[in-house]
Amino acid sequence: MNSSANSRSAKPPEAADGSATRNSVAPDEALRSIDGRVLDRLARFAGAAPLEFVMGDRVRALTPGARATGRTIATVRLRDRATLLSVIADPAIGFGDAYADGRIEIDGDLIAFLDAMYRAVPDGGAGRGFSPRSVRWLERSRRNTLKGSRDNIWHHYDIGNAFYALWLGSTMAYTCAYYPEPTTTLDAAQIAKFDHVCRKLWLRPDQQVIEAGCGWGGLALHMARHYGVKVRAFNISREQLAFARERARAEGLDGRVEFVEDDYRNIAGRCDAFVSIGMLEHVGVEHYDALGSVIARCLDPQGRGLIHTIGRNRPAKLHPWIEKRIFPGAQPPSLSEMMQIFEPHDFSVLDVENLRLHYARTLTDWKALYDANEERIRAMFDERFVRMWRLYLAGSITGFTTGSLQLFQVLFAPRYNNDLPPTRAHLYHD
Amino acid sequence: MNSSANSRSAKPPEAADGSATRNSVAPDEALRSIDGRVLDRLARFAGAAPLEFVMGDRVRALTPGARATGRTIATVRLRDRATLLSVIADPAIGFGDAYADGRIEIDGDLIAFLDAMYRAVPDGGAGRGFSPRSVRWLERSRRNTLKGSRDNIWHHYDIGNAFYALWLGSTMAYTCAYYPEPTTTLDAAQIAKFDHVCRKLWLRPDQQVIEAGCGWGGLALHMARHYGVKVRAFNISREQLAFARERARAEGLDGRVEFVEDDYRNIAGRCDAFVSIGMLEHVGVEHYDALGSVIARCLDPQGRGLIHTIGRNRPAKLHPWIEKRIFPGAQPPSLSEMMQIFEPHDFSVLDVENLRLHYARTLTDWKALYDANEERIRAMFDERFVRMWRLYLAGSITGFTTGSLQLFQVLFAPRYNNDLPPTRAHLYHD
Repeated sequence: MNSSANSRSAKPPEAADGSATRNSVAPDEALRSIDGRVLDRLARFAGAAPLEFVMGDRVRALTPGARATGRTIATVRLRDRATLLSVIADPAIGFGDAYADGRIEIDGDLIAFLDAMYRAVPDGGAGRGFSPRSVRWLERSRRNTLKGSRDNIWHHYDIGNAFYALWLGSTMAYTCAYYPEPTTTLDAAQIAKFDHVCRKLWLRPDQQVIEAGCGWGGLALHMARHYGVKVRAFNISREQLAFARERARAEGLDGRVEFVEDDYRNIAGRCDAFVSIGMLEHVGVEHYDALGSVIARCLDPQGRGLIHTIGRNRPAKLHPWIEKRIFPGAQPPSLSEMMQIFEPHDFSVLDVENLRLHYARTLTDWKALYDANEERIRAMFDERFVRMWRLYLAGSITGFTTGSLQLFQVLFAPRYNNDLPPTRAHLYHD
Repeated sequence: MNSSANSRSAKPPEAADGSATRNSVAPDEALRSIDGRVLDRLARFAGAAPLEFVMGDRVRALTPGARATGRTIATVRLRDRATLLSVIADPAIGFGDAYADGRIEIDGDLIAFLDAMYRAVPDGGAGRGFSPRSVRWLERSRRNTLKGSRDNIWHHYDIGNAFYALWLGSTMAYTCAYYPEPTTTLDAAQIAKFDHVCRKLWLRPDQQVIEAGCGWGGLALHMARHYGVKVRAFNISREQLAFARERARAEGLDGRVEFVEDDYRNIAGRCDAFVSIGMLEHVGVEHYDALGSVIARCLDPQGRGLIHTIGRNRPAKLHPWIEKRIFPGAQPPSLSEMMQIFEPHDFSVLDVENLRLHYARTLTDWKALYDANEERIRAMFDERFVRMWRLYLAGSITGFTTGSLQLFQVLFAPRYNNDLPPTRAHLYHD
């Protein structure tokens, strides 16, 4: 994949000086001149990324980066004028949709192309182009109310357990793994992440854990199996819950792990440890104080909590195409935004670890499985779906390698809790 | 110490029912009744702390906590009515000043008393009482402008190296130490802190380090000696700089460590690592963006930075008495406030470690040395100074054990720096 094998442009690209078309009639020539100027504008938008842009079979433009270095790392082929105009009008959404439709092909390595684009245009083109109004409408429509959250979560997580099973590995953990060594495999790294989290939470036998947003239940079952705790795990994705409950029964852990179909806002009961892995992205900053209130009413004064989330270096919207097509309502926070969970409730932040490059590695492992299963995924869905998710996985890799995205694990405790490990050394010694 | 040995009340406390004074004349009785009501108000202010308050030799009151539990952990003796009124008018400042003057004595363990007060009155009484105007005046007068910072720093750090040498231990490090084991000594814990910081910064030989606020130079010299780096260390305390420069010459490190008398705002030149231990408390939140700009212009894109500071769970003023008498202009930040250094400059926060209980331990070790040298300190200064600093050290211990104060080490890097250790395990393995 990532090649031009799927390209629908039949003709080979022509000479850059356009000599083959010298005999065109005047109206064509005029349109071609306009197309060229628009394509050139797109190339200038890509700035320092060393790229060639080609529209149709005749018009081409080099980015300033390509001109300055005399080289290109990829050629971006836009099928036609309508594609070009859609990308110019709204670069962030227009590019993603055109790539998914096959109206844009990348000749060259997709990840190298995206990496160059992320560095040249750090904000992904959000807010540029001519149609900010649609973005504002989107913001209104995808709010994480109780009802909105259900719709947003179903959109992504309920598209089929069989699909996710093809590329998430045997743990079905759909969050950043932890690679203690460069040679750690995906499955081992997910287990290592579970253990890293459990050690941070300092779990001891028979303690009560509440998990908010439990995915397919991997962490909840691991905690019960290896740390002897009782777990109440909450989720609003029915597909995930059905899978998790079946797993608990099969492993004989249904007496220690209860999977509850409910929103985090309705969590009640006390716990010694509160944990949430990969849910906060879907909460929305405006609900952080409410989340903090839920934790404050559940967590024992001698307890600990951990929130694991994709984050940002500073407050910023998620890439609009990802938010629109992949994760409706998602909003990774900066650390200052995350503090709105903890500060109003006088929690002490004990430890923040940024695992950004571990997520790039996790996504690379997922994408290798995804690519290997491309034919099966195409049979489950269609070509557009295959391309859309390929772009999402590749774009996420470059999001993490270029620092557009971060991965924060934040450990915290109620203010007066002094029952804490003296150092973090216990995380690193068996 | 911490006993009533210094108590100036000559008479023993009388019976709680006041039976010894039944024969007093009426005006005395009326005043005594008023005193009793005011003292009772003070006792109610102390809420759940199980204490007895005694004024002069006749008036006494129990706190609600003492009444509810039927026990007291300490007796607070106020010398006279003027003392009582000063504490009622402005509890936070009035208590500290009266204790320093010997107009208040604590019969019982000073730290246990302060611990109970911190838990019963978590904000230390700031903003209560009748004289908030003086606090607002203070805020104006102690701003950390270039000139204001010099005055504020001289107030605390330039009172004499010989004084600090009596109780800081051989490293002269005046910041939170790091105790890998419960048995680690103060000096070893300060060295362990230096190494913990150097490992977090991932120092390699011949790299250039900039240190902002270098105290007596301990860390700068340690980095040069053990990690082979070059250091430019900035400070505006002349006493500290003179000491640090003499140390560098004596150890033959003056070719690798340059001690510069200048404000952090004037730091220039590039570095691979930027470090600041215990300076941020004196910067003031309104200057964080300026500090971030200084770091952004100095730090190599492949560099790392670390800021170590006393902090808070949420934005809050420092205890007014500490701010007025001990650390003018000081303001420990919450993490959301600290993010104002990093977020505007697109730094990635890599690691936050909260060493709150290590600071309680450090202060306990300092106070043991301070107490052992009390006679010498009295000879250097006077009784008031001895009591003021005793209260400051004891209050700081309880500030950290009750979660009123936190200690944050924040490691960060420029956004595009991927040249980072894969995990934090290297901090814990030799």
